[in-house]
Amino acid sequence: MPADTAKVRGEISALLLTKDFPALKLKLAPWLPADLAPILAELPVEQLAVLFRSCPQELAAATFSYLEHETQRKVLKTLTQPQVAALLNALPPDDRTAFLNELPLDVAMQLLSMLTPDERQVAQSLLAYPDHSVGRMMTLDYVAVRAEWTVREALDFIREHGYDRETLNVIFVVDDKGHLIDDIRVRRFLLCPLDATVRDLLDGNYTMLSPTDDREKALELFKKFDRVALPVVDENRKLIGIVTVDDMLDVAEEEATEDIQKLGGSEALDEPYTTIALSRMVKKRASWLVVLFLGEMLTATAMSYFEDEIAKAVVLALFVPLVISSGGNAGSQAATLVIRALALGEFKLRDWWRIMRREFVAGFALGMILGVIGFVRIAAWSLFSNIYGPHWLLVASTVGIALVGIVLWGSLMGSMLPLVLKRLGFDPATSSAPFVATLVDVTGLIIYFSVAFVILRGTML
Amino acid sequence: MPADTAKVRGEISALLLTKDFPALKLKLAPWLPADLAPILAELPVEQLAVLFRSCPQELAAATFSYLEHETQRKVLKTLTQPQVAALLNALPPDDRTAFLNELPLDVAMQLLSMLTPDERQVAQSLLAYPDHSVGRMMTLDYVAVRAEWTVREALDFIREHGYDRETLNVIFVVDDKGHLIDDIRVRRFLLCPLDATVRDLLDGNYTMLSPTDDREKALELFKKFDRVALPVVDENRKLIGIVTVDDMLDVAEEEATEDIQKLGGSEALDEPYTTIALSRMVKKRASWLVVLFLGEMLTATAMSYFEDEIAKAVVLALFVPLVISSGGNAGSQAATLVIRALALGEFKLRDWWRIMRREFVAGFALGMILGVIGFVRIAAWSLFSNIYGPHWLLVASTVGIALVGIVLWGSLMGSMLPLVLKRLGFDPATSSAPFVATLVDVTGLIIYFSVAFVILRGTML
Repeated sequence: MPADTAKVRGEISALLLTKDFPALKLKLAPWLPADLAPILAELPVEQLAVLFRSCPQELAAATFSYLEHETQRKVLKTLTQPQVAALLNALPPDDRTAFLNELPLDVAMQLLSMLTPDERQVAQSLLAYPDHSVGRMMTLDYVAVRAEWTVREALDFIREHGYDRETLNVIFVVDDKGHLIDDIRVRRFLLCPLDATVRDLLDGNYTMLSPTDDREKALELFKKFDRVALPVVDENRKLIGIVTVDDMLDVAEEEATEDIQKLGGSEALDEPYTTIALSRMVKKRASWLVVLFLGEMLTATAMSYFEDEIAKAVVLALFVPLVISSGGNAGSQAATLVIRALALGEFKLRDWWRIMRREFVAGFALGMILGVIGFVRIAAWSLFSNIYGPHWLLVASTVGIALVGIVLWGSLMGSMLPLVLKRLGFDPATSSAPFVATLVDVTGLIIYFSVAFVILRGTML
Repeated sequence: MPADTAKVRGEISALLLTKDFPALKLKLAPWLPADLAPILAELPVEQLAVLFRSCPQELAAATFSYLEHETQRKVLKTLTQPQVAALLNALPPDDRTAFLNELPLDVAMQLLSMLTPDERQVAQSLLAYPDHSVGRMMTLDYVAVRAEWTVREALDFIREHGYDRETLNVIFVVDDKGHLIDDIRVRRFLLCPLDATVRDLLDGNYTMLSPTDDREKALELFKKFDRVALPVVDENRKLIGIVTVDDMLDVAEEEATEDIQKLGGSEALDEPYTTIALSRMVKKRASWLVVLFLGEMLTATAMSYFEDEIAKAVVLALFVPLVISSGGNAGSQAATLVIRALALGEFKLRDWWRIMRREFVAGFALGMILGVIGFVRIAAWSLFSNIYGPHWLLVASTVGIALVGIVLWGSLMGSMLPLVLKRLGFDPATSSAPFVATLVDVTGLIIYFSVAFVILRGTML
């Protein structure tokens, strides 16, 4: 039965205060670390430290790996050096890597030095892989069996060596040199006579990752193959680790966050919005904002070319924000849809012509809708006031026709820009909504005043 | 060893053409459906149909569920009614639900009528749950054991009944009325003496879902608890199905897609960009585009209040797009960051004051950066030309100061609007980049012309 967490936290807290460790041990025994962590995370740090000093090493390590990095750091500070070393040595390797990655390099190196030589080698080898690589996420906690064993021997081996392994859902089969031969779901072992050999279970069908693969590739394979763990092999096909599906939910979330932040027109923050240092956030936002600002300056240049026209027909200036922002909005929509479709692999670059045709039709339809609304709005106002002067019909036509052109243009720019960026090797998500809007603003002005020039020449201009 | 898929596809294709079914059967035997599907998906539909008519029912159903919905529909069309019925009946229930959900209602009902009464009841009960609910995603393929059994009995039961179950990674324990008592990872069974009872394995600690829960809640629980399957129970705690982690990657992806599309300023498409009917896509995009357009019309109204000022100082009009778009960009950034942080649960609504303080500082800093660049740009141009007239210093000051105010204002609006929307019960992602930009455009104009009025009065105005 799902426990009332506040109540349990209270009980644990009380036991910690009275330092009744035997009772505490009994209290904690039935809990899984994943369930315990959220309850413990809200304890005061001093109590947490007492807890980590007193509870079984294995539970402490597992619980520690579920805490927020911030809380982890606070807890470590309260422990003695041998306690820190014991805790770090007991952490699952991938969680330790994630934790060390968050620390300043000097602190990380100091902690690394506390590890036993074996564990240190593991941590260092994981840290040497590039950021966002499979190597950074892999864990060494898997069970590998040999093809010549019987199922009974394999199950005995699993029973003996499996307890501290992160996943038992997939068992890996290797040859005598440790080269990967196959991966087999543990259910196959369960559903098979005990005197069969592992070789009988081989289907010769598996997928593998390289430690230098991008984690997005791992995500793709997990989505495609519905597995709970995938093997990671070196260049000689030697099994060196596994990646588990529970890490993939985090990867999917982080990748989406990056794309969303880029689409919003800033660099990806790479840390939570609520805890990132203000100076670092301003820096990440300022860089794009300045680039967009410099781009948008071209609107002032473009408008200065039409200064005479504006002076003659000030009414034209009134509609500038309306007209160009509509192009920007249409462009944002198109860019966002195309970027997401690209990220989901819905189409390839070579399909650009099909996308362009779709956006041509959609952009034209959307432009007609806005153009008609714009025309009607100006015409309607003019029936009751003289706000747009005697030539209101021409003004309304100018705005209406310009809207068709600009919305169409915005849709085409918005949809094609991500493809161009991808073709040039950039991240398509860089063509954010604000970026596309800025480009369309500048070109939209030119379209607007060109239409005005043609329609209003001889009357207002 | 990962097979060369093109080669395998060629071999299967050849066997299908010669209708050498025994050889085909041998060829297909070692394959897992998940691995086979991408290979088969690219076969011509006629060959696929032959394959589905000839290969073992179980493999056909499993493979079918991995195909794209479009391909599934094409294959079904080529089969006779009894073949369709056999295939549908053999499909895993959750995959069948997903497939039926994609069909027009009349076609879905027609297919439902082909199911056996038992299977039909299952399909209908799944379809009756609301869209995006846990009920739509759950599968009935789980293994449940009783607490009073020994581990040996449980393993025998799993061996006997487990083969066609979707997941064996978690075994559920129920009482004699089918009420959920616990969920236990299968590894616990493997790592435990055979004569222990299931009761010895109980830790009384599990999480459960209701079929009416939103799938986002399921996603949250999976992320929090690192499980591969979660039980779904009815109001009496009776176990009625499970949800598996492999579906969660799809949910995470779809939820991110929805948010991204809304952030880009259109309704969520709910279907792939590349295959959605153009008319439906135009409709989904037009609705928001029209709303934004109507909002943006206020810029024309606002500008008409300042028509006299523009007529006197046309140079003011030149900077309108630059100034207001900078506010919009700053607002887009802030809105996107806050929306994503909200979606990730990084802060709660009651933290609004902290967010506002952060955005006040960030917005002011960003405004100062752009303000200084804007001032310097106008001043620099004026040193070499007379483009901005004799009062260029005042114009530069107007633009610079207005930028500080507008960027600050945009950051505050962009960050607070999602919180207001959430407080009112709307989806915060509705406050898309274009939406915020439009709001900031209108208010930005007022700030700009107010600053101009104060600084330029007596000289240019």
